[in-house]
This record gives sequence, structure tokens and C-alpha cells, in this order.
Amino acid sequence: MSLAEPMPIADVRVTPIAFRDPPLLNVAGVHEPWALRSIIEVELDDGRVGLGESYGDLATLADLERVRPSLVGLDPFDLNGLERRAYAALTGDPDAGAAYPAEGDKARATAIAAYEVALLDLQGQILGRPLCDALGGAVRDRVAYSAYLFYKFGRRRDDPGYPADDWGEGLTHDQMVAQARRMVDDYGFGSIKLKAGVFEPDFEIETLRHLARAFPDHPLRIDPNGGWSVETTRRVMPQLDGLLEYLEDPVMTLAEMGEVATFAPMPLATNMVTIAFGHVPETLRLNAAQVVLSDHHYWGGLRATQRLAHLGRVFGFGVSMHSNSHMGISLAAMTHVAATIPNLAYACDTHYPWQVEEVVAGGKLQFENGALAVPKGPGLGVTLDREALAALHRQYLTCGVRKRDDAAEMRKYRPDWSSNRPRF
Amino acid sequence: MSLAEPMPIADVRVTPIAFRDPPLLNVAGVHEPWALRSIIEVELDDGRVGLGESYGDLATLADLERVRPSLVGLDPFDLNGLERRAYAALTGDPDAGAAYPAEGDKARATAIAAYEVALLDLQGQILGRPLCDALGGAVRDRVAYSAYLFYKFGRRRDDPGYPADDWGEGLTHDQMVAQARRMVDDYGFGSIKLKAGVFEPDFEIETLRHLARAFPDHPLRIDPNGGWSVETTRRVMPQLDGLLEYLEDPVMTLAEMGEVATFAPMPLATNMVTIAFGHVPETLRLNAAQVVLSDHHYWGGLRATQRLAHLGRVFGFGVSMHSNSHMGISLAAMTHVAATIPNLAYACDTHYPWQVEEVVAGGKLQFENGALAVPKGPGLGVTLDREALAALHRQYLTCGVRKRDDAAEMRKYRPDWSSNRPRF
Repeated sequence: MSLAEPMPIADVRVTPIAFRDPPLLNVAGVHEPWALRSIIEVELDDGRVGLGESYGDLATLADLERVRPSLVGLDPFDLNGLERRAYAALTGDPDAGAAYPAEGDKARATAIAAYEVALLDLQGQILGRPLCDALGGAVRDRVAYSAYLFYKFGRRRDDPGYPADDWGEGLTHDQMVAQARRMVDDYGFGSIKLKAGVFEPDFEIETLRHLARAFPDHPLRIDPNGGWSVETTRRVMPQLDGLLEYLEDPVMTLAEMGEVATFAPMPLATNMVTIAFGHVPETLRLNAAQVVLSDHHYWGGLRATQRLAHLGRVFGFGVSMHSNSHMGISLAAMTHVAATIPNLAYACDTHYPWQVEEVVAGGKLQFENGALAVPKGPGLGVTLDREALAALHRQYLTCGVRKRDDAAEMRKYRPDWSSNRPRF
Repeated sequence: MSLAEPMPIADVRVTPIAFRDPPLLNVAGVHEPWALRSIIEVELDDGRVGLGESYGDLATLADLERVRPSLVGLDPFDLNGLERRAYAALTGDPDAGAAYPAEGDKARATAIAAYEVALLDLQGQILGRPLCDALGGAVRDRVAYSAYLFYKFGRRRDDPGYPADDWGEGLTHDQMVAQARRMVDDYGFGSIKLKAGVFEPDFEIETLRHLARAFPDHPLRIDPNGGWSVETTRRVMPQLDGLLEYLEDPVMTLAEMGEVATFAPMPLATNMVTIAFGHVPETLRLNAAQVVLSDHHYWGGLRATQRLAHLGRVFGFGVSMHSNSHMGISLAAMTHVAATIPNLAYACDTHYPWQVEEVVAGGKLQFENGALAVPKGPGLGVTLDREALAALHRQYLTCGVRKRDDAAEMRKYRPDWSSNRPRF
């Protein structure tokens, strides 16, 4: 039963992929037809492969590639060694790691996170246990997610050959209630988030009122993505009072969030102004957010997510989770770490229901009663479908998207579109 | 290589021990002839035993006993489960764990810590790796400790049959320089701490001056254990300026430490006013300490020590380690966790050179060049000498000490002794 032999990393692979994405609207514009991700494989001498998933934009891919060769020979249990090697590779300074969390460098934390998940997957595999056991053990066996509603176009305008999604248009209150109904019926989600900052706040709040009437027992959230001014937020606050479990990122800056907090009756949540440990002291000083939406992809990994949650316990702020468009590797990682966080206060966000393609074997992971059961492992509990990976990589090579630009996509619909904020 | 079988805890044993302790002086009085500890054994179905070590006073033993039965059946990787079970056992509230770190309950954190080390020892044994690998991996292969000087009596007054230690008296400046010389010569320590609060501050500062002349390259610390008033601290501050790497706990309360910080030119360290996560926000608000001396025994364990160190990285305070009289199990645990902390800023404290008895097989662990090499494992890398454990337990049964009381011991020397603080 002893595993005394060292198991150095023999090979590291990063594969960019592109998968179809519906025309979901947000403050910046509209999702492009192809969402990009990177799939990380870390292989040991004995052939075991640990998986990670991160962003697929060129900047992230360049960082991942700079770190990649330095990981050969590393032991998968040496997560501190990963941080040191990654920082040395990205900064040229072998001692850069010591100053890490206070810097608030999202790009470096992103590179570390991508590989850390793969190393933890390997740890779980070596242990023959679910990944969460390498993080102190699960305090719950299922993790609740929320229904993530988007205003959306019915189909892509510029490419009649691109298949329409089956969600239809989401531009009216009734269409949004229908979207929520399908989310709740199909997945059992017990709370609802509306991506906002698309239309005038009064219209979006009217959508919320429709949702509240249709789902009186579902806590509601709205996320204008910093699309409102402080003045606009102040004007609409009386309408929001009593409607929301929290208000996410109404405004753009930490200082503005602190200002909104002085008159907001509900908790403020953020994944935009507090996005690294270096931002936490000022966030606390301004009381700028009462809920921090963690995201292991840019906070520095699953251990960093636990550290953020611990800060929440010490300083009394709530913790939940942010998401971008993602595959099942990220969903499994989110679920494992969320299972270990005692003070996870809200259902986590996920874009996952909007995705129709998948890179993990067996197809999409299944929500039940609004939650995902913690995968039984070993490790992440998901493995690669190599044919799917190859197909999604071919889509990356041919799709033409290299850096997410929702504004450029929107200008195909509205040539005068600007994503300047605040929009309202 | 897969370890998929569950390995539930089959038995948990807590054995109180007493070991000889020299007549070391401090603000409260003098160390009693017997120091108490508890030795924790957590045994799996397969016979593996994980070790822990904690305090041996009656209150701690009672808490350990209340938690003990609840751990049977727990998986050694389920550290979060340990916290939940311990909190439930100690509070009667099965949901008490969720609020844990902010409460600042030293007793509960102590019970968790004692068992957490044993579980991590088991994890390392199962992995066939040193314990530090279960904590993210070592960033250094040796951990520096400091020479911990005490004013002391030459021998016990009340019991001529109790063997004198071989350190001799430590009541004059020259005797203290000789004590330091032996510490530095025998162990190679590279920094020196003077336990103070015993004599008038001016006398103790003169001892520091003698040490500074004899060891010009050794950073110095002084720890009056809260024995000084704010006014006294202000008066002597000009004499301390330039002598110290930090000033430890000159005064008794968080508020007083904050006041001292307004006029102290050197960092202030504490293991007395910031002793739980619940104290950290106020410590930061008052800027009351720039160095927190962690102690896994009462902060909640090795993971809690890492969390405290992470708070130091985020909020910019230094971290090092406090110690009480202890055996090699605690020293090994301190060394493993210290090895994983990137921002460990100072040599750790340890009473270990003052101990002549040992409970681990092979006798006392050896410092080299002022540092302890991280034990190679598996797990803690130390095992029990069962004959020694039995002998030290017999000493516990017969020694008569059940709760440390340095003041009562001192009254054998000075009948009018009071340990009221501030003394000066």
C-alpha cells in the first residue's frame, strides 16, 4: 500500500479547443459562435493523466506554454513547487513565488490554477480517492448550482449554416420566464441568476418581477456586469429591494461598489472588482462586497479557492462561485472544491447548460435536483474523450476566434455597438 | 497502486505524560518539575498508527476525551469531517463547525489540532511520503529554530532528590551569555530569544546588550510575556531600538499592543493577543502585531497554520512559530508545516533543547546548523518508543501535577510571589 516511489511528471500537454456557444447577450455584446478553452493533460511516467481546463485565449495559452516545460520532473504532490516553478517561468525571477497572493496578478494565478487541478487529479488517482479527499474531504455530497439566464438572440445572424440552439429567443419577459422554466424543469435548479446590463435597468428589473411571480420560492440574482452607474444603481435600488438574494457587480470599480454598499439593502456580490487576494484588504476596508464569487481558474486553483473561503469565514463575507463557458473538467473541479467549503453560502453559477459539446468521456455531467453529485473519482472522476478532444481542437483550428470579443460579434448585429461602461 | 479501500479509524488513544523540566523563569513564576503533554494515537483497521501531541492539562484531556469516541469510523483523509465531529462533540451542536474559525475558541481548536496531526501522519504513511507532501509540499528541506534563553535557577529548591539539569544557573548577564553560547555551539542556532518579564526591564535589556556584544551576527528577540505596562514599554523603547529583530508581547492586551505599535520602531510579535482567527480582523485594524507567532496546537492544526500564514501573505504580516515545552512529535509536526510555508519569516521558537526525556523512538531529534531537517517520513517520520511512553505516563500518574501553575511553584521560592501583570 505504500507509494514511496517518486512519480515525476513526464509530459505536459495543452490543447486549445473551440465549442459552439449560443448567442447570449451581456453588457459587452454577444457571445461569439465559438467559445475557447484549453485542455491540460499532465502525464506521469506510469501513464496516469491528470486533467485541467482553463481559458483558451492567446494570452493564457502563451502563459501555459511558458510554464509547461518547467513542470517535467515535478512531483504531483508538490503543489508549492508548481507555484514556484510557474512564477519563475512567468517572471524570470526564481524567488517571485514568495510574494504571490498579494500581487493580484490574475494571469499568473490563472496559469497556476490550470496545472494545479491536473496535479490534484493525479493525487486523487494515486490515492484511489475522489479529488476532494486531497483537499480535506467533502462536507457535502452534492453541490447546488443556479439557473443562469441570458437574454439571447434566437439564432446567429451572419452565418445561416451555423445551427441554431434549441432555446429560442430570449428578449421579452415571457421568453425569459420560459427559459427559466426549462432550466428549472430540466435541471431542478433552486435559484435563478439573470445576466443583465443588456437592456435598460427598468426593463431588466421588470423581467425579475416576472421571474419572481413565476418562481416565488426561487432566490433571484441579477448581474449587470458593471453596466450601471452609481447614480443609476441608486435610482433603481428601491425596485430591487426585496427581490434579490444578492446584487452582483452593478458598477465597475471597487470604489463604486463601496459607494453602492452604503445604500444597498441587500448583499453585494462580485467577480469583477475582487478577483485576487491583493484586492481583499481594500474590499474589506470599503465593505465593497458581502459575497465574493470565487473562480478557481483565476484565483490560483482549488487550494486558493479554499483560502478565499477561509478569508470569508474570518472576515464574515459570503462565498460562492463564478463561471465562464466551460466543459465538464472545470465543472468537476468546481464541484470537488465546492464540496470541501463549509461556508459555501449560495448555489454556484455555471454556464454548463448552455453547452452542447463535451470533451469528457460519457458526455455531459448530469445535474439532479439543481445539484451535481461530487464525482466518485478517482481524482476528478472525469476522463478525456480523445475523439471529442480531437474534434474540438479541429474546431479551434478552423473557427478563426483567438480572443473573445463579444463587442465585435455584436457589431455584426448592431454596427454602432459600443461596450463602453457604464452603459446605463 | 490504487488505495480505493476505505480505511476507517478503528481506535483512538490519548495518554497523558509528564517529563522533567528545568526551573525556567518567566513572568508567571517558574516551570514546575514536571511538564505535562498528551500523546495521541489514532489507529486504523490495518494497524497503522498516526501520532499527535498536545497539552496535558486536565481541561485539554477532558476535551480530547469528549472528541475521542466520535472519531472511530472516520477516514483519515476527512479532515473536514474531523472538524465537524470535534465541534459536534464539544458543543453538542452538529452544525457548530460552520462558524468555527471566527469564534476564536482556543480550546476547541486545540482538540482539533491534536487529532489533525495524527490524521495527517496517517495520510503521509498511506502515501508513503513525508507529511509535508499532504500539505502541498516542502518549500525548504530544513527549518531554522532559535536559541530560546531563560533566566533560571540552578536547581530545584524543594526536592533535593530531583536531579539538577546541567545548564546551571542563569541569573546574571554572564550566565545568560554562557547559556546562549552553549545553545549556539551545541545546536548552531542563528538567532536568539530571551524569555523576559522576570527582572526589571532595564536589567533584561542589559542582558540583551551583553548578548548583542557576544553574538553580533545573531538577531535578538525579547519576550516579556505581557509583563510590562504600556508606560514602561514606552520608557525602555529607546534602549531597545536597534537591538531587536522583533519585540514579542511586551504588553497584555490587543489594545495595548496597538498602542505600543504607535511608538515601536521595530516589529511587534505576539502569541498572546492574536491566538485565533477571530482576533485577526481587530489585530489588523489596530496594527497591533506585525509578526504572528503561530502554534498549530491552539490555532487548529497544520492546515490552520497554513491558513494563518496565508493571511500573513494577504495582509502583509510576518509569521513564525511559538512553542511550549514539548516532545519530538510536536517538533516533527512543526517542522513539516513550517517547511510548507513560503512566507515563514523568522526562525521558529522551540523549548526542545531544555527537554532531556523523549517519547519518540531513537531519542531526541537533532538540530544541525540551527535547523531541523524535514523528517523523511513516511508521515511525521517519528514513531513511538512504547517503553518511553509507558515510563513517561507513570511519571504523569505519580508526579502530582495536573494543571500547569508556575506561580504556585514560584511561591516555594518566594512565598509572597504574585503573577499579576503587568509586573513592571
